[in-house]
Amino acid sequence: MVAVKTIGRVRTQASEEDIKRGRSSIVSKIVIDRRYVDGLRGLDGYSHIYVIYWMHRRAGRRAELLVRPRGRADLPEVGVFATRSPSRPNPIALTVVELLKIDGNVLKVRGLDALDMSPVLDIKPYDYYDVIQGIRVPGWFERIWAERRD
Amino acid sequence: MVAVKTIGRVRTQASEEDIKRGRSSIVSKIVIDRRYVDGLRGLDGYSHIYVIYWMHRRAGRRAELLVRPRGRADLPEVGVFATRSPSRPNPIALTVVELLKIDGNVLKVRGLDALDMSPVLDIKPYDYYDVIQGIRVPGWFERIWAERRD
Repeated sequence: MVAVKTIGRVRTQASEEDIKRGRSSIVSKIVIDRRYVDGLRGLDGYSHIYVIYWMHRRAGRRAELLVRPRGRADLPEVGVFATRSPSRPNPIALTVVELLKIDGNVLKVRGLDALDMSPVLDIKPYDYYDVIQGIRVPGWFERIWAERRD
Repeated sequence: MVAVKTIGRVRTQASEEDIKRGRSSIVSKIVIDRRYVDGLRGLDGYSHIYVIYWMHRRAGRRAELLVRPRGRADLPEVGVFATRSPSRPNPIALTVVELLKIDGNVLKVRGLDALDMSPVLDIKPYDYYDVIQGIRVPGWFERIWAERRD
């Protein structure tokens, strides 16, 4: 066990249903604790950032190790580490978002799939090392991707 | 504070100096706790994965909020959230690696910058949503990128 601090909170009006419909147009705020505000210096040089947050509504619930992606009966049962499902031993979420604006300790971002008041554990820049070309993904993911609307 | 479980450990012969010279050729193992082995089913469908791990040698050390990237005096002082520096409120690391092989509960990966025995907190697939084209990064990062040898 490691003890991880909450460095801030997500503030959003997006509901679980909004997020399921697609996160690409959702605009949210991330309010960083004022004691960490110096840590944001220069972050505005990046167009995209990683948000690592805690899926607090899942915390304490028993994690299944096998899931059907997005709960879809037509997709194969796979291990949780092969998905971004919230059902996992540690309900840590990782999402790349577009950084729209920084105003003091408040980040405005687009594309975050977090619910309101989610504890934020870390913010990291998304840089060239994170852009991998020619990746391989499983067939079920190719299907989801082909059907996406956002 | 949130309590996060260790789901496995990094096993590697790479030293801190090896990692500083460039992580791209480093081959490491990730040994997942046997109780979570079902969670790995189907992960081999991906060429790349995210490893979220705990920089245990940093834990307990005071985090600076302003750092010079890679400790270089010729680069500007920026906030830790604008870098991947290990000095940060939570010493959580995030690295995209190439997944070479899975053998039971042991993953063989290339490109991991973790030290031996680092606690692993989560494994996530790297998928098309994670590939962002046309990103913007700060000038200091462009410099590091242009000078890279790996």
